[in-house]
Amino acid sequence: MSTSADPVESEPGFEAIITADRLEPALEAVSTIVDECKIRLSEDCLTIRAVDPANVGMCRVSVDADAFESFRAQTGVIGVNLGRLEDVVGMADGGELVHLALDPDTQKLEIAVGELSYTLALIDPDSIRQEPDLPDLELPARVVCEGRVISQAVSAADLCSDHISLGCDEDAAVFYAEATGDTDDVRIDLGRDDVIELEPGAAHSLFSLDYLDDMETAIDSGAEVALNIGEEFPVRMAFERADSHVSVVFMLAPRIASE
Amino acid sequence: MSTSADPVESEPGFEAIITADRLEPALEAVSTIVDECKIRLSEDCLTIRAVDPANVGMCRVSVDADAFESFRAQTGVIGVNLGRLEDVVGMADGGELVHLALDPDTQKLEIAVGELSYTLALIDPDSIRQEPDLPDLELPARVVCEGRVISQAVSAADLCSDHISLGCDEDAAVFYAEATGDTDDVRIDLGRDDVIELEPGAAHSLFSLDYLDDMETAIDSGAEVALNIGEEFPVRMAFERADSHVSVVFMLAPRIASE
Amino acid sequence: MSTSADPVESEPGFEAIITADRLEPALEAVSTIVDECKIRLSEDCLTIRAVDPANVGMCRVSVDADAFESFRAQTGVIGVNLGRLEDVVGMADGGELVHLALDPDTQKLEIAVGELSYTLALIDPDSIRQEPDLPDLELPARVVCEGRVISQAVSAADLCSDHISLGCDEDAAVFYAEATGDTDDVRIDLGRDDVIELEPGAAHSLFSLDYLDDMETAIDSGAEVALNIGEEFPVRMAFERADSHVSVVFMLAPRIASE
Repeated sequence: MSTSADPVESEPGFEAIITADRLEPALEAVSTIVDECKIRLSEDCLTIRAVDPANVGMCRVSVDADAFESFRAQTGVIGVNLGRLEDVVGMADGGELVHLALDPDTQKLEIAVGELSYTLALIDPDSIRQEPDLPDLELPARVVCEGRVISQAVSAADLCSDHISLGCDEDAAVFYAEATGDTDDVRIDLGRDDVIELEPGAAHSLFSLDYLDDMETAIDSGAEVALNIGEEFPVRMAFERADSHVSVVFMLAPRIASE
Repeated sequence: MSTSADPVESEPGFEAIITADRLEPALEAVSTIVDECKIRLSEDCLTIRAVDPANVGMCRVSVDADAFESFRAQTGVIGVNLGRLEDVVGMADGGELVHLALDPDTQKLEIAVGELSYTLALIDPDSIRQEPDLPDLELPARVVCEGRVISQAVSAADLCSDHISLGCDEDAAVFYAEATGDTDDVRIDLGRDDVIELEPGAAHSLFSLDYLDDMETAIDSGAEVALNIGEEFPVRMAFERADSHVSVVFMLAPRIASE
Repeated sequence: MSTSADPVESEPGFEAIITADRLEPALEAVSTIVDECKIRLSEDCLTIRAVDPANVGMCRVSVDADAFESFRAQTGVIGVNLGRLEDVVGMADGGELVHLALDPDTQKLEIAVGELSYTLALIDPDSIRQEPDLPDLELPARVVCEGRVISQAVSAADLCSDHISLGCDEDAAVFYAEATGDTDDVRIDLGRDDVIELEPGAAHSLFSLDYLDDMETAIDSGAEVALNIGEEFPVRMAFERADSHVSVVFMLAPRIASE
C-alpha cells in the first residue's frame, strides 16, 4: 500500500459484495491493457484507469456501487495483480457472490467465494504506472454499432495486415474500416442503415491491430459500442458490459500512416 | 494471372454468389492436399484438381453451377492461396452469402461477405504445380460405406502404425482395413451387412496414414463414401459434401509393402 | 507375460465384455499415477494397484464382475501400457460394448469394439513396478464431501502455492484445506453443514499439489469422496465412479512441512 501522505492516495476502508459475472467483465477489460493496475475507490463507485507501457492504449473501467450487493468504501487506491485477482474471482460461478474486504491490519484483500477465502497481497500503488487522464477530445465523427461489427472488422483486417484504418466518408455518410496488406486489401463500409447511429465527420486514422485484437476480446458481440474518430486522432470506444453495470472506455492512439 | 496465349488458360470473367457452407467444404477438401491451387472455371462448374508435392495424394473437387445462387464464368483458370481464401470465406456465417468477382482490371478476386469486401491477390497459375489427371483405373473391388467407418479405421490404425492396408477377402465377401505395428495390430472386417454396398474383388494395398489422416478430415461422418481398391493399386474415394453440392474424389497411391 | 512359477502370477484365462463408460473411468484413475500397470484378475473382479516412481502417490482401482456384461477370469496378472489401452477403449462410444479376451497362444489381449479388433501386446508383469500394499492406517479424522469440493480446494491452492494442507480443527468441528504462497494464502473451512459427513480428529498434513492436480481429474464432481487424514500422515481418498461400478482409493504421502 502507498504510504503517501496524499489523502486521496491514503489506504481505504473497503468492503463489498458483488456477483462474479459483474466483477469479471470489468477486470477482463482492464487486463487487455495491463497486468497490474490501481483500483480507485470512492463512496459511489470503483474505477480503474490504465495505460500500456508504450502509452498507446488506455482504458477507464468503472463499476457503480449499484452493481454491488453491498458496497462500502472510503476514498482511496489499492494496487492489484490483475491476473491473480481474475483467477480468484474466476473460482466463483457466474452468479455466485464474491466478498471483498480490505484487511486494515495486513493491508491485504480478503476475497471470499462460498467457503473459500483467499488473501491477496496488494501491490504498492506507487510502484504501478501512473493512471492516465483519458483526454476529452472533440472527435468529429461518431458511429454507434454492435460489438460484432468491431470484431468482424478486426478479424478481417488481421487476415492481411498489422494495421487498420478507421474513417468516415462524410459525403456518402459512410463509416469505414480498411486494411491494406502487401497483396490483399479489405474494407467494410457501413451506412446509416448498417449501424445504430452515425454522425459523419472528417475522420481517417490508422491503428495497430495488436492493440485492437486485445481490446476486441472485451467487447461483447451484442454490446452497443460508440466509436469517436478523427483525422490522425485517437479512437475512443465506449460501451457497457454485464447488463450496463460495467462501463468501459478504450482509447487508442493512432499510428502515423507510412504512406 | 497467366499471360499464356493458351485460350484455356486465359483470364476468366467470373462472378458468382454462394453460401459459405457450400464453398467452405470444397476448399477444405483441397486444402488437405495442397496450400495453393488452380481453380478451373467453366460455364457450368468450378473444378479444382491438385496433387501433393510427392505425387502421392490427389483430389478433384467440383462445385456445380447449381450450388451457386448465381454463377457466371468464362472458361479459364485462377490461382489462389487456399488458406487465405478459406479464412476470408470463414468470415461468413454458414448460410451467409459470399460474393466472388474477378476484377478484370486488377486481376484480383473481390470477395464480399455482408458489408465486408476483401480483395484477394491471385497467384500466377503457371507458378502452381501442374494439375493432375486422376487416372481412370478399373479397380476390382468396391465398397460404399459411411464416412464414420473411414474415420474409425484411420484412427484405429493410427494407434499402432504409420500405415494401413485396405483390402478385400473375396471368398468371405469382406472388406477389411488392417494395420500392423511393432507390437500391436488392428483390423476391421466389414461384410455386406456392415456397409451400404460391397462388390468383392482381389484387392490388398498399403497406404500411408499421413495422407489418410488429412483426407479423412474432409469426409463427413454421415457421407456415403465409395472406395475402389485393387492389388497394390491406388485407392479411390469418392463422396459428396454440402448436401451433394460438392463432389470430391481423393486418390492415394499405395506404398510398397516392406514385408 | 510372466513366466514365473508362482501360481498367482500365472497367465490367466480371461474373457469379458463391458461398456466403455465403465472401463474408461477405471483406467483413467490409474493413469493419473502410472503409465504401465499390472491388472490383477480373479473370479469376481479386476483390480489394479499402482504407485508412482517416487513412492508418493498410490491407487487401488477395482471393477467388480457385476459391472461386466460377462466376465470369466482365472486368477492371474497381465501387464498393460495404460495409455494404449485407454486409446483403444476410447474408440468405443460411451455405452458401446468392449470385448476383452486374452489369447492363450500369443498372450496378447484381443480387444473388439464393433467391427474393430485390436491386438494389444502385453507387458511382462515382472518388468512393471511392484504393486503397492495400500497401508491400512487408522486415521483420526474423516470427512465425506462432494468431488467438486476437492476440485475447488486444489484449484484454489494452485493459484498461490505448490502445496496444500488438509487438516481438521477438532474444537470447531471444521475440516480445512489451506495453502500458503509467497504472498497470498487461501483457506477453505467446511463445517458439518458443508459436507456429507464429518468425524473430527487431530489432523494436519501437507501435500504436493502436483499429485493432487492429477488425482483430482479422476474424481467426478458429484462423487461422494471419503477423505481420511491425520497428523503428518498420508491422505486416503475413496470414491466410486461409473454408477458405483468402479471403486477407487487414492493414497498420497505427506510432505514434511518446511515451516
